[in-house]
Amino acid sequence: MSKPRLARAKGRVTAAADPLGIICGSGAFPIAVAKVVQARGRKVMLFPIRGFAEPAVERYAHRWIDLGAFGRVLRLIQEAGCHEVVLVGGLIRPRLRHLRFDLTTLRMLPRIAMLYRGGDDRLLSGIAVAFEERGVRVRGAHEVAPELLMPEEVVGSFAPGRRDEEDIRFGLKLVHALGPFDVGQAVVVADQRVLAIEAAEGTAGMLARIAVLRESGRLKLPARAGVLIKAPKPGQDRRIDLPAIGPVTVAEAKAAGLVGIAVEAGGTLVADPDGLARATDEANLFLFGVRAPGKRRR
Amino acid sequence: MSKPRLARAKGRVTAAADPLGIICGSGAFPIAVAKVVQARGRKVMLFPIRGFAEPAVERYAHRWIDLGAFGRVLRLIQEAGCHEVVLVGGLIRPRLRHLRFDLTTLRMLPRIAMLYRGGDDRLLSGIAVAFEERGVRVRGAHEVAPELLMPEEVVGSFAPGRRDEEDIRFGLKLVHALGPFDVGQAVVVADQRVLAIEAAEGTAGMLARIAVLRESGRLKLPARAGVLIKAPKPGQDRRIDLPAIGPVTVAEAKAAGLVGIAVEAGGTLVADPDGLARATDEANLFLFGVRAPGKRRR
Repeated sequence: MSKPRLARAKGRVTAAADPLGIICGSGAFPIAVAKVVQARGRKVMLFPIRGFAEPAVERYAHRWIDLGAFGRVLRLIQEAGCHEVVLVGGLIRPRLRHLRFDLTTLRMLPRIAMLYRGGDDRLLSGIAVAFEERGVRVRGAHEVAPELLMPEEVVGSFAPGRRDEEDIRFGLKLVHALGPFDVGQAVVVADQRVLAIEAAEGTAGMLARIAVLRESGRLKLPARAGVLIKAPKPGQDRRIDLPAIGPVTVAEAKAAGLVGIAVEAGGTLVADPDGLARATDEANLFLFGVRAPGKRRR
Repeated sequence: MSKPRLARAKGRVTAAADPLGIICGSGAFPIAVAKVVQARGRKVMLFPIRGFAEPAVERYAHRWIDLGAFGRVLRLIQEAGCHEVVLVGGLIRPRLRHLRFDLTTLRMLPRIAMLYRGGDDRLLSGIAVAFEERGVRVRGAHEVAPELLMPEEVVGSFAPGRRDEEDIRFGLKLVHALGPFDVGQAVVVADQRVLAIEAAEGTAGMLARIAVLRESGRLKLPARAGVLIKAPKPGQDRRIDLPAIGPVTVAEAKAAGLVGIAVEAGGTLVADPDGLARATDEANLFLFGVRAPGKRRR
């Protein structure tokens, strides 16, 4: 019995001995992932994307990269001895002709152009496939740093009421109905009425719209009403595009006059849980990690 | 054979001899409906809602009414000898405590409060039911003035291309998926990518958002891209809430950089077809009346 177990354990150690490559988009998550992975005893090599990643990534071993230079990225990953990468952080869809391409990328252009016709899912999935075809395995942030996943519980001091729970159920159903269209990871619902659905404007843009509609009197609601419901799209490749929640979204939800936020437990990234709990308490909002439909309670 | 036919014809004449009551919200449609119905030889009596209806309604026989004074509305309808009404024009959901209620309305308040919890569909359907319970039949604008329905054809000089047609099919599917949630009569799609979904902000708000996202560079698209797709919600009570299309929406779509507009033929109101054709030509946009899914070509 001991032999195969040893072999399996050995395989695991070998994988962990390779540094994990972290392709860094914008925001705090690339650094949060690097921190957790390092704390678990694995080396990291960051590949921050110029114009997107935060300067603070330079605290870790890193090589800056350009969008559009996929050949160089592959070389750098090989030089660093990485066999696995994660893609973390924000990446606003760039306009093709604003990119500077290297040869490898140019060869991929017909495929990239195809991917551009679809939603963000198809674009990012295509990048993941391109990595894997070249022998680099794409892992999800939730796999290498599960500590960063939203728990199935209330974060902070406030809990949703019965009506809020109805709105959450309604909103989750709506998000899942939008799944086949590769859009809408977030909606705002107040008393079973859909106030907003996110598309190209992003969650911040959607929440700002609610604030403006309320201030202008176009949207007539009680002083505080509405729940932001955010969930991964069904069928979404969770390795590359999990939604995230942080203090900025909490502040935006407060500005929109909402009463709370519900995100899918295990399906949403949290860079700093303690900071997030403080932010929700200060904003007087509830933040609830809700079980995905069809999933059993742990 | 002649007797029953005479009786049926008589019945029809009697109904048409009653003036048609037109409850007038905002915009050009109440007057367009009044004009068509009068041209068909039926008298009209307009009930413009204060704060919503345009002053031009006063060209027709009319009695101004207040939201919240349902008892008075019923009395006026009876005095005018109307047995049928249509509800036409815009009506932004008012805040309950901003309304001045009469006794009849106060008795209905518990039910109105319930209706307020749902989407616009439930609110307006509730009003229709309240009329019918009191012996006033609610007709649809499309029934009393079918001349105002969008035809199944291109309006103006431009036609959608093959890719536009794909976007239109995709957008119609999305609108129909939103149906059960009482939201979203309009979406914007560019090359199979969903740019925006309408909720509480309305079509104008959604189009303004696209314009802003493009100007700010947040949304990176070719100079002209995207189709506005607008359709009635499935299961929507067409008597009370058909979407409308007019020169204002055309101008807003142009400002958003779109290439065209598709609306459901027979399921969208057009107040002034000639003016609309001129507006689309000036805006360099196509406007296409698309057959509803599952409906056969005429």
